[in-house]
Amino acid sequence: MKSLREYLWFNTKKKLEFINITQEVARLVKKSGVQEGLCLVNAMHITSSVYINDAESGLLQDFAAWLEKLAPHEPVAHYRHNDTGEDNADAHLKRTIMGREVVVAITNGELDFGPWEQIYYGEFDGQRKKRVLVKIIGE
Amino acid sequence: MKSLREYLWFNTKKKLEFINITQEVARLVKKSGVQEGLCLVNAMHITSSVYINDAESGLLQDFAAWLEKLAPHEPVAHYRHNDTGEDNADAHLKRTIMGREVVVAITNGELDFGPWEQIYYGEFDGQRKKRVLVKIIGE
Amino acid sequence: MKSLREYLWFNTKKKLEFINITQEVARLVKKSGVQEGLCLVNAMHITSSVYINDAESGLLQDFAAWLEKLAPHEPVAHYRHNDTGEDNADAHLKRTIMGREVVVAITNGELDFGPWEQIYYGEFDGQRKKRVLVKIIGE
Repeated sequence: MKSLREYLWFNTKKKLEFINITQEVARLVKKSGVQEGLCLVNAMHITSSVYINDAESGLLQDFAAWLEKLAPHEPVAHYRHNDTGEDNADAHLKRTIMGREVVVAITNGELDFGPWEQIYYGEFDGQRKKRVLVKIIGE
Repeated sequence: MKSLREYLWFNTKKKLEFINITQEVARLVKKSGVQEGLCLVNAMHITSSVYINDAESGLLQDFAAWLEKLAPHEPVAHYRHNDTGEDNADAHLKRTIMGREVVVAITNGELDFGPWEQIYYGEFDGQRKKRVLVKIIGE
Repeated sequence: MKSLREYLWFNTKKKLEFINITQEVARLVKKSGVQEGLCLVNAMHITSSVYINDAESGLLQDFAAWLEKLAPHEPVAHYRHNDTGEDNADAHLKRTIMGREVVVAITNGELDFGPWEQIYYGEFDGQRKKRVLVKIIGE
């Protein structure tokens, strides 16, 4: 069995951002030499997400507006987590909706994707250094 | 290490449908010959889901009503994704709630399930050909 | 390839509880002897969750309040699933938001975690015996 583990690093300009990381992950699959296996990609922080959906700018705006509706930032005092001095309780909830991780099949040495599948990093409490873990196992 | 990769194909009559695919996946686990391993089942399209829950018709109605409340189809013009000419932005959001994929343990050559766990395909923008990927690895 | 499969058992005092299971899972990773691999942790019941987030008591209160807002228990008669005589339709929806499973990388014989990642069992229809499955594969 072969395995590879690498980090992807982010430091976003805005609090909330969506970043397409498909090419980075595909590069690591090549580097691993795995032909048949699984690729786990997960946020290592609990206020950010890794998810798979469309690379379409309108949809990214829709995700941002929808998440703000389902888990609003304001009023900050609404959340008990923010009693700790943090103001990012909503970011924990937004990340929960979007998910922590994806697991992708590797077939013939490539990410085994449908036509529109793209891997995104979703940042909900950015403007600081954060990591994504890529772990690949297989043969 | 053994591996198997196969597609399941769907072309639903309605825009929104839930289809129990447990028996199909169990058949592929047998076919793989894997005794101990993992089975990934994921939608290959970004407006459909694979999830695990109850095979109970009332619950399927509840899921449909609940998803329509959390991510309504109308008004179509509410979503920036629909500015592209699509009208399926809500389907991208519904799929996000229900999830893209499940990973199931394989033990003694079988799906290692609790008493009520069933694998479902959730279609939110149907009436066209779409696929699910099944990837099995193990020994 | 090595593999290990074990159960964690729960019987919560309250209907809704969150239980930190990180140490239990870490112990099973050691027991497996796997140095490089993947660890799947999933609820075996369809009204409970396994998820990764912060071990912070305020956030657990926020999750409970937020889930009750997104998927309220009352009115029980609102849900078709409850026509079966059950009253736990909301628990199926709450579990859907929080997720069934997590997949965690194992690197150098340890759970490969960011600084705040903790694995939680989320119970939404407790006060009875329920299980979580831990499945580890690797080398």
